[in-house]
Amino acid sequence: MKNDYIAMTESALFDFLPDPGCREAKLIESMRYSLEAGGKRVRPRLVFEFNALCGGDPDAAAAAACAVEMIHTYSLIHDDLPCMDDDDLRRGKPSNHRVFGEDIALLAGDALQTMAFEILTCDKTAALMGDRACRLAANTLARYAGATGMVGGQVIDLMSENINAPIEVLREMDYKKTACLIKAACELGCISANATEAQLRAASEYAECIGVAFQIQDDILDRTSTDEELGKPVGSDCENSKSTYVSLLGVEKCRVLVDELTQKAIGALGAFDKDPRSLREFALELAARKN
Amino acid sequence: MKNDYIAMTESALFDFLPDPGCREAKLIESMRYSLEAGGKRVRPRLVFEFNALCGGDPDAAAAAACAVEMIHTYSLIHDDLPCMDDDDLRRGKPSNHRVFGEDIALLAGDALQTMAFEILTCDKTAALMGDRACRLAANTLARYAGATGMVGGQVIDLMSENINAPIEVLREMDYKKTACLIKAACELGCISANATEAQLRAASEYAECIGVAFQIQDDILDRTSTDEELGKPVGSDCENSKSTYVSLLGVEKCRVLVDELTQKAIGALGAFDKDPRSLREFALELAARKN
Repeated sequence: MKNDYIAMTESALFDFLPDPGCREAKLIESMRYSLEAGGKRVRPRLVFEFNALCGGDPDAAAAAACAVEMIHTYSLIHDDLPCMDDDDLRRGKPSNHRVFGEDIALLAGDALQTMAFEILTCDKTAALMGDRACRLAANTLARYAGATGMVGGQVIDLMSENINAPIEVLREMDYKKTACLIKAACELGCISANATEAQLRAASEYAECIGVAFQIQDDILDRTSTDEELGKPVGSDCENSKSTYVSLLGVEKCRVLVDELTQKAIGALGAFDKDPRSLREFALELAARKN
Repeated sequence: MKNDYIAMTESALFDFLPDPGCREAKLIESMRYSLEAGGKRVRPRLVFEFNALCGGDPDAAAAAACAVEMIHTYSLIHDDLPCMDDDDLRRGKPSNHRVFGEDIALLAGDALQTMAFEILTCDKTAALMGDRACRLAANTLARYAGATGMVGGQVIDLMSENINAPIEVLREMDYKKTACLIKAACELGCISANATEAQLRAASEYAECIGVAFQIQDDILDRTSTDEELGKPVGSDCENSKSTYVSLLGVEKCRVLVDELTQKAIGALGAFDKDPRSLREFALELAARKN
């Protein structure tokens, strides 16, 4: 599965980009630049895994995987802009606006978002999964990516930058910023296979658990690596300007939470007839990761 | 029709915005701010007119009209940002980022685009126009709004800012920047009424003609008002840093073109059984406008 889904996602991504011979060549080049700097393709993997678990067509999964990856990529381009995080680097390469300029980077992000919905609703995708599944997939992605989903999470993050946010704000922010797009990926895998309602609910529960666990694990890794660098005992108290799960709950409680969420995610996989081994292993891998 | 469609569009727009009591309240307020500053609602009007001409349900037209207006609004917010046109004012009011900051304005534009696709694909819209029409509407809007449509036109505009672009570049830029979203509006009016292929083609031709005529008329009005201010004979030669239809063809030839395109648009309306009086008058109004 592993190499297959990466190759299928990337080939579908680049097939869908317009001909670089057009007058907007610089825009297309900028979109391609960020799509190529693709990291581990966690979201496409989840789309393919759930699609396979529900007995779906891998070509339908490829269209859905592309759409989720395009939304993820657009959000990274806009996040790096000077008016947001002002990051010069993304995954070790110069960020999009450092290469193409802020104006083109802004428009490349905009066009990637549009393209996500174009690919989910085109005739080719409809021939693979049907009109109703296309509509549901587009709607699901829009709900999780929009004002009360991923973008909403970014706003909560901006608003709580200089305050010690309480745990419920942190939970809502992480749920929206990170878990929502993970949920979209898992649910689109099911939708692209015309799964049942019960399967969709199980995928959604799995996604929410690993999405939140992922974020807590990130906070643990940030904290323990900082402590090790500073030569302090791991998890010792320190003042942070911004709340994290670790600053609010401590390292030990966070580790317990990650384990509980991982077990709950694995439990949700019981709703599927096929063997969910690969998704079970994926949840365990995420919880055990060291970076 | 006129007051009805404005009231129906605005009520549907504001109904669809999330509860302002959420943690992302500032984002919702920023989205609402720009949606309220709505101008003449030309695109919603076209959606309603074509929907009625094809015998469609006005509630289906309202959903489609909202989606097109959300795309138009997001493009204006992003266009005004400092990295693009850096405009402090939009329709006489402070531009979105002047009120809410660049970060929130960027995200409000992003979330408005997402919401356009959410409204076109939600269960309520599907109950009004069917799964297939929802999918086609979302796909049509995405194609006209994206990398080879509206956003593509903005890129061509950026690339030709300091050069005397030849007529074919100007034509492609104006077609994409302006006419594409007009086409989306007219076609979505038809799609929301489950119109025939022939009706869809006729709406598309009407839209392209009035879209291009609109842009040429804009160039004429810019030039003649400038000449009048400067006390020069209307249409006399002057050096401009940027090509326009008038600088390339002269005022007289442009006036002939606007008339030809308007007559062609009106001709396309012959494909409809119902009386297209209102759309005929609209084409003539646009061609005769003085501002």
